[in-house]
Amino acid sequence: MRVVQKFGGSSVADAASIKRVAQRIVATKEQGHEVTVVVSAMGDTTDELLDLAQQVSPNPRAREMDMLLTAGERMSAALLAMAINDLGHTARSFTGSQAGVITSEKHGDARIIDITPGRIESALEEGDVVIVAGFQGVSQSTKDVTTLGRGASDTTAVALAAALGAGYCEIYSDVDGVFTADPRIVPGAHRIPEIGYEEMLEMAANGAKILHLRCVEYARRENVPVHVRSSFSDKPGTWVKHIDEEDSVENPIITGIAHDRHEAKITVVGVPDRVGAAAEVFTTVADAGINIDMIVQNVSVEGGTTAISFTLPQSDGAKAREALEAAQGSIGHTQLIYNDKIGKVSVIGVGMRSHPGVSATAFRALAEAGINIEMISTSEIRISVLVDVDDLDKAVRACHTAFGMDADGEAVVYAGTGR
Amino acid sequence: MRVVQKFGGSSVADAASIKRVAQRIVATKEQGHEVTVVVSAMGDTTDELLDLAQQVSPNPRAREMDMLLTAGERMSAALLAMAINDLGHTARSFTGSQAGVITSEKHGDARIIDITPGRIESALEEGDVVIVAGFQGVSQSTKDVTTLGRGASDTTAVALAAALGAGYCEIYSDVDGVFTADPRIVPGAHRIPEIGYEEMLEMAANGAKILHLRCVEYARRENVPVHVRSSFSDKPGTWVKHIDEEDSVENPIITGIAHDRHEAKITVVGVPDRVGAAAEVFTTVADAGINIDMIVQNVSVEGGTTAISFTLPQSDGAKAREALEAAQGSIGHTQLIYNDKIGKVSVIGVGMRSHPGVSATAFRALAEAGINIEMISTSEIRISVLVDVDDLDKAVRACHTAFGMDADGEAVVYAGTGR
Repeated sequence: MRVVQKFGGSSVADAASIKRVAQRIVATKEQGHEVTVVVSAMGDTTDELLDLAQQVSPNPRAREMDMLLTAGERMSAALLAMAINDLGHTARSFTGSQAGVITSEKHGDARIIDITPGRIESALEEGDVVIVAGFQGVSQSTKDVTTLGRGASDTTAVALAAALGAGYCEIYSDVDGVFTADPRIVPGAHRIPEIGYEEMLEMAANGAKILHLRCVEYARRENVPVHVRSSFSDKPGTWVKHIDEEDSVENPIITGIAHDRHEAKITVVGVPDRVGAAAEVFTTVADAGINIDMIVQNVSVEGGTTAISFTLPQSDGAKAREALEAAQGSIGHTQLIYNDKIGKVSVIGVGMRSHPGVSATAFRALAEAGINIEMISTSEIRISVLVDVDDLDKAVRACHTAFGMDADGEAVVYAGTGR
Repeated sequence: MRVVQKFGGSSVADAASIKRVAQRIVATKEQGHEVTVVVSAMGDTTDELLDLAQQVSPNPRAREMDMLLTAGERMSAALLAMAINDLGHTARSFTGSQAGVITSEKHGDARIIDITPGRIESALEEGDVVIVAGFQGVSQSTKDVTTLGRGASDTTAVALAAALGAGYCEIYSDVDGVFTADPRIVPGAHRIPEIGYEEMLEMAANGAKILHLRCVEYARRENVPVHVRSSFSDKPGTWVKHIDEEDSVENPIITGIAHDRHEAKITVVGVPDRVGAAAEVFTTVADAGINIDMIVQNVSVEGGTTAISFTLPQSDGAKAREALEAAQGSIGHTQLIYNDKIGKVSVIGVGMRSHPGVSATAFRALAEAGINIEMISTSEIRISVLVDVDDLDKAVRACHTAFGMDADGEAVVYAGTGR
C-alpha cells in the first residue's frame, strides 16, 4: 500500500531525532509499503530564518521571504534522506517544486492548485523512500518558489496522499492525537479514537491546534483518512475519516470541547438604526482583509441607535480598529470598544443534529459554574460561547463534565464506533 | 552594459555585511548597468551544514549532500535581494537551477555544461537586479540539484558573464587583488594591476588561492575579463584578461611568485629497472583518482632498481599510499617514503618565454639563501621547485627579491602595461 507520513519540526529537531524518525520510516517501508514522507523544517529553523530576514530588512518582499524560508525544509529533507540511506534503504529528497506541488502565486500563503507527482511516482516504482520538503511549492504562473503558510506541511502531506492514491496519511507530531478537550485544562480529557471530517473541521476552526483547517478541508474533499499520532510512541492516535452517520447511532452526542483564547471582541456603539448600517460596518472590516467570527447586533435602544459586536483574531485587532475609525464619518457610530480579555469555548458533535437540548445543557452548566456568557454562535454541529478569558478554563471543564465526557483514564473508552 | 558581480561568503557574513554589499550593487545599477550578482553562502554556513550532515550520517550520499548544501546560497541570495529591495530597486533571487546553470550529474563536483539564462534575461529586461545562488546547478540528465565543488561560485559568475554577454565579471572577496606574492610572507609584495589568463592559471594551479582554476579556465575560454577586488574598499583590484604579448614587451619577465604548502611527496624506492615500471606506478595512482604534480625518476643505481618520486595533494596522501601498497606485488618496489613537510615555490611570468636565464637566477637566489632544492618542474611560463617546508617562506622572499619585484609600497608601481 502507498502511505504518506508527515513529521513536524519537533520530530526532526536535531540529529538524534532525525535518526529516530528514519527508523520509524524504515519500519513502515519494511512492512511492504511504498512510503512518501513530508517533513517540516527542523525545530526553530523557520524562526531563526525569520529573525535573519528581520535583521536585513524591516519589510522583506514576500517572494524573497519564500525563497529564504524554503531552505529550512530543504535541509531537513536532505538530512532525513541521509539517515534513511544509512539504514540500508535508498531515500531521495525532493523540494516541493520537484515533487510537483503546483500552487497559486500568493507568496507566503499560496494554495495548492495541483500535484504532478511524476518524479515521486518514478522514485517509488524504483523502490525508493521519497522525502518531500513540506510547506512549499512552485507557482503555476511565475514558476517562483512559494510557501503555503505556516504549518501547511500537513496540507502538503494530505494533498500528496490524494495525488498518489495513498491508503492513508499519518501526521506525526508531539501529541498523542485529538483529545475530547485540551488535557492541560481538563485532566479527564481522553483521546478520541476516530472523528469525522466535519467535526474535525469545527475543532480546527475553533481553536484545536492539532491539525490545520486547510489540511482537514483537503482531506475531506479528497476523502483521505488521516491518522494523527505521536512520533514519540507507538500508540495509535486519532483517525480523521469519513464516518457513516448510520454507523454512529451509538456515538455520544458530543465529540469534543474546543477553546480559543486568541480572539478579541469589538463593539461598535451608537450606530444609527437605519437600513444598511450593519452592512457598512462589516464591509469596512472585510475590505481590510479581516475574517470575523461571531456577530451580535443589539436590539435598537431608545434614541434610534444600536450596538454591533463581533469577534476577530487578536492579531487583526489594530487593523480593524483603524479601518472602523477611518469609516466613522459614513457609519456614524459614536464609540469603539475593544476587548481582548475574552475566550471562546465550543461544544462540538454531529450528535446534536438529532438530539435537542444540547445548548440548554451547556448554558446550564456554565450558569452553575457562575460563568457569564457574552456572546453565542452556533452551527449545525457546534455551539460556541464567548466568556471572560479568566473563566475560560473553568468553562471548558464545566462543559466537558456536563456532557459526561470525563474519564478516569483512557481505559474508560468514551465511544465505540464499530472500529 | 551588462555586469556580473560575485560576492564571497566573507562579504555576506552577517546582516550588516549583506546591507553593505547591497549598497555596492545598487551603486553599480545606478551607473546604468544591468547587474547580475552571484553570491556564496554566508560566512560559516557551509561548514555548519557539513557538521550537521556529519552528525546525522557518517557517509552521506552525495545527492543528498548537494540538496543540503545548496540551502546556504539560497538563503544568502534571498537575503541580499531583500536588502536591495529596501534601497528602492527591485531584485529577484534565483537558485542555480532557476538561473539555468545546467551541469553534469557528478554530485559534489559537477561541471557546468550549459547556461540557459532565459529567466535572468527576462528579469534584466524588466529592469530588475538579478541575484543568483552560486556554487549550484541542476543535472542535465537527472534534473537533480548539483554543486560545483567548494569555491565554485567564482565559476558560476564567469559562466553567467559569458552567457549573458557581460562586459566584465567582478569577483569581490576580502583581499585587494592578485599580488606578486603573498603579502603575509613578502612585505614588499604589491598588487598586480593586470595579468593574462595563462599566468593567472599558473598562479591558481600553484597555490594562489585568490581565484579557482576552473574559473580562470572558463574566463580564458570565453574571454571574459575578470576584475578581482575587495568588497571592503573602492580601490581597483587586479584585472585578469587577455593581454596581447606585443603590448607586453615593456612588462617584467616575472609576474608573480606563488607558493603551496599543501602538497606531499611520495618516493617509491627499489622499483625494478624495467620497461613499464614507471607507467605501473602512475597508473596505480591515477586509478585511485589522484592527480599528481611533479615527477622525478632517479637514474638507475647499481642493482637494477630505481626510485620514483612524485608530489600530490596532502589530502590524497593516505589514499595513494594504500593504492601503492596494494599494488606492491606487481610493481615490485621495496619501500614507500612519505613526506608532507615540503613546500612548493613557483616563479611565473610569460616573459620567460623570451628571456633565457630565469631558472639560473632562481636557483642562484635559493642557493645564496642556503635553501636545498628537492625537485624541479617547469612549464613554458613557470618554474617550480620543491623545498623543505621550513624554508618555504624564505624561498618565496628570495625569489621575489631576485627578480627585482620588491616595492617599498604600492606607489612604486611594478609594471606599466599600457592600461
